[in-house]
Amino acid sequence: MKLSVTQENFAKALSNIGRVASGRVELPILNNILLRTDGGRLLIAATNLEIASTQYIGAKIQSPGSITIPARLISEFISTLPSGTIDLETKDDHLHITSGKFKSVINGVIADEFPELPTINEDTAVRYEIATDDLKKAVSQTILAASSDMARAVLTGVYWHTFENELYLAATDGYRLAERKLMKADGEVAAIIPTSALQEVIRSLSDATETIVILFGDDQVCFQTPELEIISRLIDGKFPDYRQLIPQQSQTEIIVSRADLSRITKVASLFARESGGGVTINASAEDNIISIHSIASELGENTSEATAKISADGQITLNSRYLTEALNVTDGEEVSFAFSGKLSPCIIQSTAKKRDYIHIIMPLKS
Amino acid sequence: MKLSVTQENFAKALSNIGRVASGRVELPILNNILLRTDGGRLLIAATNLEIASTQYIGAKIQSPGSITIPARLISEFISTLPSGTIDLETKDDHLHITSGKFKSVINGVIADEFPELPTINEDTAVRYEIATDDLKKAVSQTILAASSDMARAVLTGVYWHTFENELYLAATDGYRLAERKLMKADGEVAAIIPTSALQEVIRSLSDATETIVILFGDDQVCFQTPELEIISRLIDGKFPDYRQLIPQQSQTEIIVSRADLSRITKVASLFARESGGGVTINASAEDNIISIHSIASELGENTSEATAKISADGQITLNSRYLTEALNVTDGEEVSFAFSGKLSPCIIQSTAKKRDYIHIIMPLKS
Repeated sequence: MKLSVTQENFAKALSNIGRVASGRVELPILNNILLRTDGGRLLIAATNLEIASTQYIGAKIQSPGSITIPARLISEFISTLPSGTIDLETKDDHLHITSGKFKSVINGVIADEFPELPTINEDTAVRYEIATDDLKKAVSQTILAASSDMARAVLTGVYWHTFENELYLAATDGYRLAERKLMKADGEVAAIIPTSALQEVIRSLSDATETIVILFGDDQVCFQTPELEIISRLIDGKFPDYRQLIPQQSQTEIIVSRADLSRITKVASLFARESGGGVTINASAEDNIISIHSIASELGENTSEATAKISADGQITLNSRYLTEALNVTDGEEVSFAFSGKLSPCIIQSTAKKRDYIHIIMPLKS
Repeated sequence: MKLSVTQENFAKALSNIGRVASGRVELPILNNILLRTDGGRLLIAATNLEIASTQYIGAKIQSPGSITIPARLISEFISTLPSGTIDLETKDDHLHITSGKFKSVINGVIADEFPELPTINEDTAVRYEIATDDLKKAVSQTILAASSDMARAVLTGVYWHTFENELYLAATDGYRLAERKLMKADGEVAAIIPTSALQEVIRSLSDATETIVILFGDDQVCFQTPELEIISRLIDGKFPDYRQLIPQQSQTEIIVSRADLSRITKVASLFARESGGGVTINASAEDNIISIHSIASELGENTSEATAKISADGQITLNSRYLTEALNVTDGEEVSFAFSGKLSPCIIQSTAKKRDYIHIIMPLKS
């Protein structure tokens, strides 16, 4: 293999791919990245056996070939070089790298020992094309509600599925639930994508990429742009039928500035450390005031209020961190915060006409 | 005590002062900050018994008084409040805080239990007034060479001293030495200031503060601006007579772009992890090339070069991290890098006419 690339493109690709190189002790080759000529481009790939990430950059190829190289050393080395042309040449299992006055030899492993990169059957897969901004937003709005408890693996991913002719993303850890309606359905989907794969996709997308293709296979999903391909296994199992948990109506609806509710929640949470972050919200329909009172017996107490439009008196106790996080990813300047008594779930959503996001938090016993 | 302050001023002062509140378990009052009216201002202070930091902010005072309050809670609480006026009022050992719709009571401790704040005798102290930019720079250029090894306490500070009618800062950990000439002497000084105190001063200085007064007492030093006073104990003991270690002449002098030398050092260090960061620098007077060759037996090897003006051939082995850090704080686009054979110290300094900074690194055995 003998070829030239630019330092800028190579460094950027390596910083993305390097994150996936896993460092599994039982399979040291996974610490390496694969370099392989691919037509007029250089393919750079890594896998941790759950996710495989492949990036393509333009290259001037003199002779084709492949090698695998320790991910960390090559990433740090290339990122430290000045911008300009970098020449790469393999001799046996060594990679010779030259850039102006910098000459290195890095000891690699022949590409045959690298695990085969997964592929997806594009003919049978269900294909979606999505604006990257929409994807980033939808993922950020749902991923926070996914569980990190591997004992219930189905809850550790985001559930992409079609329902009544729309594509939805949903995630829940049993304490809260986030659902985002993304776009019109264009083929049946029911796939639980690991949060780690979604995080990797979001981090790898450059701002210049306007749309991304998602291919849903039977047990794999593939995210594709012209320069990038990330394939992940899907989580096996059936996602719970969460729709039955969403209350259809609420006794108390509070319409309040999102910034105001966010701030009084944060202030109250400072005094709620002893109670594990639990804060009690009171709504008074007569005064149109939403207030949070929290007491830390040793430290002191706090009452914070905001004006609001309130349909009926009500009281509910919530984990303040969940409420803060939900408000951070809800759209618009004003939110609706609705519940029916102390024991049923509360619903947070924007008051904007187009309501495509709903966040539900289970109450704490107060 | 009853008074009003602005949220902006109070939050800023608390974030500075809060860093000093120490959390010593044996003296829990040190977790608190002291609030005390002081003429038309509010004094906010904390101490960890080594450093005392006091900040003054404008206040509308209705009745004088004092209290101590848990540092972390009050800092977080005030920083979360919206900007505007904050009313503070003590009732017994409780502090009532009101800001618009936010009402809190924080449980404090009466100020009598707080350690007395140290003072310095301004009549007997040696007084210097220094531009804050000069102070920040001089501290950043020397503090990196101070030791963190408490077994040799005198080396854990920066040595401020007068010599031949100039004020100098110097620090050394035995492996490297940094010396900065700061200004004309204006009274004898020989004081070892703990690095923690200098860091606290640098962090606390606002960009708007143009000059700072430093008062050197017998066993204390005080940094003063109109809003701020930081008093630290000095480190007891005699700083080593480091001047005899500075070589008066060098066989090999290399004049090289600071950016080039920095980059080839960084690249070489990637391949020098097995040897604890040691890299060997070769200077060739015939070619006018400075080069670094490093070998990591498992990973590979690297040669990086830069053009330079070189007085005579030479070779020296250094810790690459020390060299990188020295280059980061040396002024100018071009540096002089000089040494005499493999065993004597090397000297790094700017090639600018005004040479007020010198950095010395001891060689490694190669």
